Amino acid sequence: MTSAIITLLSDYGLEDGFVAACHGVIIGIAPQARIIDVGHLVPDGDVRRGAAILAQTVPYLPSGVHVAVVDPAVGSTRHAVAVQAGDRVFIGPDNGLLSWAVHAVGGAQAAYEITNEDLFLKPVSPTFHGRDIFAPVAAHLVNGASPADLGPLIDIGRLVTLPTPSSRLRDDAAEGEVLSVDHHGNVQLSITGADLSSLGAHIGDTLAIWLGVRQLSVPYRETFAAVSPGELVAYVDSAGLVAMAVNAGDAFQRLSLPPGAHVRIGLSR
Amino acid sequence: MTSAIITLLSDYGLEDGFVAACHGVIIGIAPQARIIDVGHLVPDGDVRRGAAILAQTVPYLPSGVHVAVVDPAVGSTRHAVAVQAGDRVFIGPDNGLLSWAVHAVGGAQAAYEITNEDLFLKPVSPTFHGRDIFAPVAAHLVNGASPADLGPLIDIGRLVTLPTPSSRLRDDAAEGEVLSVDHHGNVQLSITGADLSSLGAHIGDTLAIWLGVRQLSVPYRETFAAVSPGELVAYVDSAGLVAMAVNAGDAFQRLSLPPGAHVRIGLSR
Amino acid sequence: MTSAIITLLSDYGLEDGFVAACHGVIIGIAPQARIIDVGHLVPDGDVRRGAAILAQTVPYLPSGVHVAVVDPAVGSTRHAVAVQAGDRVFIGPDNGLLSWAVHAVGGAQAAYEITNEDLFLKPVSPTFHGRDIFAPVAAHLVNGASPADLGPLIDIGRLVTLPTPSSRLRDDAAEGEVLSVDHHGNVQLSITGADLSSLGAHIGDTLAIWLGVRQLSVPYRETFAAVSPGELVAYVDSAGLVAMAVNAGDAFQRLSLPPGAHVRIGLSR
Repeated sequence: MTSAIITLLSDYGLEDGFVAACHGVIIGIAPQARIIDVGHLVPDGDVRRGAAILAQTVPYLPSGVHVAVVDPAVGSTRHAVAVQAGDRVFIGPDNGLLSWAVHAVGGAQAAYEITNEDLFLKPVSPTFHGRDIFAPVAAHLVNGASPADLGPLIDIGRLVTLPTPSSRLRDDAAEGEVLSVDHHGNVQLSITGADLSSLGAHIGDTLAIWLGVRQLSVPYRETFAAVSPGELVAYVDSAGLVAMAVNAGDAFQRLSLPPGAHVRIGLSR
Repeated sequence: MTSAIITLLSDYGLEDGFVAACHGVIIGIAPQARIIDVGHLVPDGDVRRGAAILAQTVPYLPSGVHVAVVDPAVGSTRHAVAVQAGDRVFIGPDNGLLSWAVHAVGGAQAAYEITNEDLFLKPVSPTFHGRDIFAPVAAHLVNGASPADLGPLIDIGRLVTLPTPSSRLRDDAAEGEVLSVDHHGNVQLSITGADLSSLGAHIGDTLAIWLGVRQLSVPYRETFAAVSPGELVAYVDSAGLVAMAVNAGDAFQRLSLPPGAHVRIGLSR
Repeated sequence: MTSAIITLLSDYGLEDGFVAACHGVIIGIAPQARIIDVGHLVPDGDVRRGAAILAQTVPYLPSGVHVAVVDPAVGSTRHAVAVQAGDRVFIGPDNGLLSWAVHAVGGAQAAYEITNEDLFLKPVSPTFHGRDIFAPVAAHLVNGASPADLGPLIDIGRLVTLPTPSSRLRDDAAEGEVLSVDHHGNVQLSITGADLSSLGAHIGDTLAIWLGVRQLSVPYRETFAAVSPGELVAYVDSAGLVAMAVNAGDAFQRLSLPPGAHVRIGLSR
């Protein structure tokens, strides 16, 4: 591996020194490493949210070692894994956190269980594998270790994966679910802009959006700035997915749509 | 441009992967770039607050490319601009966000509309110009592109500027307004320490401060630590501006003074 | 000093440009410096919390210059100091903030009052020594200045130190206090895992924990994942200290135990 890039995602928060400890361990082992913090404010233990952030960010990150730690079962029997996908290596707990990102960059070519204690910081804290296992392992990889040095090859078909968000294109409607809610309260769906194009929807149209028993008529625009402040709008977001926003407002609060909620979109007659 | 420094200011927040995507795009194009995050917690769409933070920080930043994105009208018809000021280049939406910082470092020498799509990431998301336009353009600048490569020269007199905060020195009083409120609740005015000196005020004096119809007698000290906890104080802050604070407290909550509120300061008799 | 590492800890928050100004000053003086942010969300003026974070993180940071600024008395008569400990130099206000970290890496070998104004940014703001004194001094150190260049040698016995958290091992119980509460609401005690071992406690036992007049029976496990969600657990945390947590919950809210509260732990009969 020639890249010296290591990226970090976690739910460690920024109030404590946990992120800095990971940086320190990496730099101590691999001073040439360049670290990019993908983010550390994933809600505590929210594997799905961490997976969504990583998957939507990784296409814009240089190839390297991508460490992700949202690990509510740290210290239990879940495995630590390294997943090779193209010229990237993803490292983290085998709880589905990595699965959407691995899929986003073309899928896994090989996977290894991380068991080689020679590469760990010792003693390994039962509650801080980020610092004692994942950070030093990532540093050793940019120092020239091979993923095969980390531990035994495992069957990529046995990696834990999150269910792919449902999305189905029918004759007159696209069905999907709420995938994620961002910092601005924008509600991101598993329905793509391409799905809407297949239905014959164009920017400027009005969409019929069913949320359970509610039906809304929502303008479909290029961006939220195209509607008046306080108005609801649907647009294709920076990840290529249909999102609902309120210009200068919070669509999540307006709609009360949690991740996983079912959504159907058709053209308004 | 020989400096490899790129600084980033935005209202993207730290919960999502938006900032990391910008870092990733920059490093992918210009691996030698050194990135300084000025901050990403500007309140959503608060151009004035973003402008104040950038203007007060830029004198302490090395020369380089200064990217700022607080852009409530992203995707509308507002222009993207590059403004050259000395050996610095400011990049962002032409909505006034850059204006106070450009003024703080001596004013604009030239400005360019950013239209050269060869330098963009494609497809350009209508809602994430930070990642797809501003980040790659900044990276190309540190790779040797010239601001003139970005697009057509525009008249610097036609750049959008925020109104300069009002401040007027009278015989017996300095008038101004609330410029900004910082993280600690300290209320920063558009009145300078030099203004108070012109009035004959010295550290240790008591000031008469009019806030609308209210009049307060406030000790003028070198720092908030010079008064007792819970006590109000006026001092010259780290930007050279008069600020009001409560030692170990929150002056903004105490005074309810929003940005723009009128303030007059004289010497207490 | 050959290391180019500078670490920063403060209570500046991330909303303003204060941290970026410190980065900018450092890089302007010492472009080769590598900066690690230990954290900037120490609660305002909370010297004890800052000291705990620094002490628990520094063993994982490469040697270098460790700057810490939680400085409620900035601008008063407190001294600025540089404390040499092994191949590390700690820089900050002499208010006890550095004391636990210095102790954690083996104690002070020498201390200097920082008085050499040639190394400061001028004019020095009375309220922002981080930018105008500590950041440039740290940069000059990585540029080759010696701690002795900063100002006069002072007696290490006269440095301000925080009281070491009380901890006493009796025949049948370990006594201590609440040291810190982390971002997850985990309550960290001054009692070590080794103390519990001395009492004969083993993972899997039930502990009797006295909090003032309350007595709780708490399972002692390797990690919080070993109990059911919502259940209280005691474990040895990543700093080697006994901590109380609620799996998928907030022990601080559950127990209302502020830092300093007295705690006694014995084996449950």
